[in-house]
Amino acid sequence: MNKQIGMSSTQLGAPVYIREWASAVGKKEGEGPLSQLFDFVAGDDLLGNKTWEEAESAFQKKAVSLLFEKDPDTCNRVRFLLAGDLLGQEIASSFGLKDYRIPMFGLYGACSTCGESLGLGSMLIDGGFADRLVCVTSSHFASAEKEFRYPLDYGSQRPPSSTWTVTGSGAYLLSKESDRKYLNNQTVGEANQNDSPIVDKSVFDLPRKCFIERKYEVAITGITTGKIVDYGIKDSMNMGACMAPAACDTIYRNLRDFDRQPGYYDKIITGDLGTVGQTVLIDLLKQKGYDISDRHMDCGIEIFNGEEQGTNAGGSGCGCAASVLAAYILPRLACGEWKRVLFLPTGALLSKVSFNEGKSIPGIAHAVVIECMKQSL
Amino acid sequence: MNKQIGMSSTQLGAPVYIREWASAVGKKEGEGPLSQLFDFVAGDDLLGNKTWEEAESAFQKKAVSLLFEKDPDTCNRVRFLLAGDLLGQEIASSFGLKDYRIPMFGLYGACSTCGESLGLGSMLIDGGFADRLVCVTSSHFASAEKEFRYPLDYGSQRPPSSTWTVTGSGAYLLSKESDRKYLNNQTVGEANQNDSPIVDKSVFDLPRKCFIERKYEVAITGITTGKIVDYGIKDSMNMGACMAPAACDTIYRNLRDFDRQPGYYDKIITGDLGTVGQTVLIDLLKQKGYDISDRHMDCGIEIFNGEEQGTNAGGSGCGCAASVLAAYILPRLACGEWKRVLFLPTGALLSKVSFNEGKSIPGIAHAVVIECMKQSL
Repeated sequence: MNKQIGMSSTQLGAPVYIREWASAVGKKEGEGPLSQLFDFVAGDDLLGNKTWEEAESAFQKKAVSLLFEKDPDTCNRVRFLLAGDLLGQEIASSFGLKDYRIPMFGLYGACSTCGESLGLGSMLIDGGFADRLVCVTSSHFASAEKEFRYPLDYGSQRPPSSTWTVTGSGAYLLSKESDRKYLNNQTVGEANQNDSPIVDKSVFDLPRKCFIERKYEVAITGITTGKIVDYGIKDSMNMGACMAPAACDTIYRNLRDFDRQPGYYDKIITGDLGTVGQTVLIDLLKQKGYDISDRHMDCGIEIFNGEEQGTNAGGSGCGCAASVLAAYILPRLACGEWKRVLFLPTGALLSKVSFNEGKSIPGIAHAVVIECMKQSL
Repeated sequence: MNKQIGMSSTQLGAPVYIREWASAVGKKEGEGPLSQLFDFVAGDDLLGNKTWEEAESAFQKKAVSLLFEKDPDTCNRVRFLLAGDLLGQEIASSFGLKDYRIPMFGLYGACSTCGESLGLGSMLIDGGFADRLVCVTSSHFASAEKEFRYPLDYGSQRPPSSTWTVTGSGAYLLSKESDRKYLNNQTVGEANQNDSPIVDKSVFDLPRKCFIERKYEVAITGITTGKIVDYGIKDSMNMGACMAPAACDTIYRNLRDFDRQPGYYDKIITGDLGTVGQTVLIDLLKQKGYDISDRHMDCGIEIFNGEEQGTNAGGSGCGCAASVLAAYILPRLACGEWKRVLFLPTGALLSKVSFNEGKSIPGIAHAVVIECMKQSL
């Protein structure tokens, strides 16, 4: 079977199952529209740590530990970690995951890293190089502001096109088809009943109130790997516009490579374009002959109530797509409400150095096709 | 066939061939012991650019373009780029490679990224997800000093245990066994006869004088994926000591997983431990029952003449292992002098933020087994 589809897409030989997932988010995210869907909501965005960077590491650790709590034996059977974040030299992942002592691939695709990790991870499983592995990504509002923009203490104003970096992390356990004996038929979020032994227990942990019955398994069946697309935009306060061309390119290549129409997917879900980027994406794809306006969804738009929460164009960051995938998208697939989605986190490839040196902000978007496997349970 | 060996190693189903390789280095590297072996030596470390970051991008672009010059059709048939560097948010790779418009996986493993890219890349080929792909990594002395330490203008003193970040890049074309028709039976370095169309031609390009006859093909046959190892060392001027425990861990796991003795390899080659780290590594492995003192080699020690060039403990950076692999190690395998090597670039997982916040410097080392395929040509 030829797994290489078209110029740049991949058809997996067998579906790669997302067996478990977990999300851990900050206080503000817990006050947004998806409040009741996260596995863990922090009462304090420092999670008992002294620095924002340590706090981001703790969110990543928390997400992975929630995953492992769902099946305590899993920890010893995970062959690889695929992880990334937005900080310079990926210190949130290095310090968050070092105690697990699992062979690790550090990835960087800016806010698209969640999609990159799921794409690479599913290829490693399909190729027989691992029976199960964990993908995890994170971001933190305060560590990201420090890394990319201004000290929080400046209280600098934010234009309407700006986005708000999500404080949070999402983690996923990927496994091959035959590895079904380890599946726990838990309701989503059950892990929350026991707090993790790793994160300080004094942190207030909002109980999850919304349980969605998990009827079916979900699996990754295809991948369209991102290309760097640069339209020459230089405004770091309008990341949606910087990333929309890359999202357009990836969606277009996915539809063309697989010879599909947008209607093949129940939802086409970008990571963090926000309201401005969404408009740009829909317009760009219309110019290429595809109308996705009736099925486009953006994790950044879903996670916050922009007007009430002052988050302007929406949420962003490696933790945005990752936590919304775990809290909102996978449960909708697992209960059968959606059959297929194209999930493509979007990344803006800038650093404060490149920005200060007057460089443009190229984008990249890594897509995976995630399906509800109705025959599986 | 089970590709999963032991707890954390991989035996590829078929050898993954390193069909071509190219190295592009800076002026100081061109004055060192390997001077005559690099494909391209710059006369000026800015390569006609205005910033050190742009220069680093240009070295990466140069290495990839040298690779493509060896077979001009290759460019259109490369399915993935796997790339990384040391700068915050990997801007050297993003800006260096964006014009190629090839689907790209950004990787981060600090100075171990070259090993990470070869490991992941060979799994993608062995799994059938690509027929050919390119791995490329880079570093630059001046951009790294700016990213991690002090402005060059300070002229700060460097202790004897410090290393000198290599200015350079190495790129590799990986392909599957059956993809042999594209192999050019060139002498190593022939590409240097034509300058790249991408890098400014006014840059002085030292001609390579040393041609090694390429008799055999070389291939990756096994992988041992790195784990993060943290001995709690906090001295960023002694990176060798920070990384040696990770190198020890990876070598130990490789020998144990494959049930081999050090003598199985002609050389066990670390990336950039330098003279201090080398001593630590050999001691640590002796404690675990393995003596590699007669076959250990370190790219950082090979690339500079420390006493004459003032580079103290040796060279370092993503570009160190990458350029030495292309210039020195692969040619030795391709001419049959060595039969098998264990190649493991070593990375120190720090950022200036983590360092300033008093965190330790964990290490990681990603290993690949590279063999001379005597039956191939």
